[in-house]
Amino acid sequence: MKAVVLFSGGLDSTTCLAKAKEEYDDVIALSITYGQKHDKETECADKIAEYYGVELIRFDASTIFKDSSCTLLKGNEEIPTGTYEEQLKENDVVSTYVPFRNGLFLSIATSIAISRNCDVVIYGVHKDDAAGNAYPDCSEAFNHAMGCAIYEGSGYAVSVKAPFINKTKAEIVAEGLKLKVPYELTWSCYKGGDKPCGECATCIDRQKAFEMNGVKDPIYL
Amino acid sequence: MKAVVLFSGGLDSTTCLAKAKEEYDDVIALSITYGQKHDKETECADKIAEYYGVELIRFDASTIFKDSSCTLLKGNEEIPTGTYEEQLKENDVVSTYVPFRNGLFLSIATSIAISRNCDVVIYGVHKDDAAGNAYPDCSEAFNHAMGCAIYEGSGYAVSVKAPFINKTKAEIVAEGLKLKVPYELTWSCYKGGDKPCGECATCIDRQKAFEMNGVKDPIYL
Repeated sequence: MKAVVLFSGGLDSTTCLAKAKEEYDDVIALSITYGQKHDKETECADKIAEYYGVELIRFDASTIFKDSSCTLLKGNEEIPTGTYEEQLKENDVVSTYVPFRNGLFLSIATSIAISRNCDVVIYGVHKDDAAGNAYPDCSEAFNHAMGCAIYEGSGYAVSVKAPFINKTKAEIVAEGLKLKVPYELTWSCYKGGDKPCGECATCIDRQKAFEMNGVKDPIYL
Repeated sequence: MKAVVLFSGGLDSTTCLAKAKEEYDDVIALSITYGQKHDKETECADKIAEYYGVELIRFDASTIFKDSSCTLLKGNEEIPTGTYEEQLKENDVVSTYVPFRNGLFLSIATSIAISRNCDVVIYGVHKDDAAGNAYPDCSEAFNHAMGCAIYEGSGYAVSVKAPFINKTKAEIVAEGLKLKVPYELTWSCYKGGDKPCGECATCIDRQKAFEMNGVKDPIYL
């Protein structure tokens, strides 16, 4: 069985990749850029793909998002600090929601999977990102429908796997630690400094996830 | 209400565009190339968008399909002649199936629709293309699941409409003739000559559709 893993170089997708390497005969990593403010994850993706010895396919989807006001994107407003809960008090979705990103990325992965005779597309969506519908393209309802669309639309050739959809980030880290994932190579922070900012929603979540496992995040060592 | 129409410059999507112009306050046409053997539809799309006075957004998705063996793509085997039924006797899907094209195109359209505050994404999928599962990404099952995925994944902001999903090409032409669609500007043939080849599956289907309406296809006039 062959798999394509959506792979950003972040914590969740790197754990996905590690798990896929255990479970599939052949694994391709797919890294899609979308006009982010920094290239930090991209650099990390290269190193991690090399670490695992997997082919890394890149695709630049940034022109699709050129009219989006998403704060992750270059030229747009600053990324807010604070948790998702705080942001959701004032808005329907968080300002870091990239319009239909997971739908688009899974579709690109499926087109490539069919061309490359892969059976499975895997992505690292998890329970925390779906909480409060902060990211509607991370919900179980989305995942289920998208999985059906891909299975039907590929002529039953490709299935979607979301191994962490019912897991928290802390549970993902627990699984990754068992798999000896090189978390020091991953990048989660929404900003692109030398060290993580420690203040954005994803930094806060990542810190909590390691704390709950009683482990210091190696990125701070 | 604002709509994005997936628009190739072919018969089905042009009729979709004409219908959307009647029904929505604002319409954007989205034309996605994917490495086709010819640019004939692209030229037609420009003229038709001008005719209807709609904005035309273009996106080149060809690198996504660079490893596909689909016969519509540059550098690959010749496009077969004969009907879809004949081709399906020997294969699961037809050789002109572009891997998960409709899923990918609808996802791109959704990302743009959210960025541009559009409510609806429309595409010209119809009953004939789904027959015998020739194109699995044209089936009702695919359309239903993809519509759910887009509605959920956009945070209930975008709906998918497939106005012709239960119609034959002949019924689409019937509707287009009422809407006075300039069919002489459209292009359906899989090949890119000066005139349609008249032999490929889509030429055969188009001719039949006009014949069933008792009208000569203006492209041959």
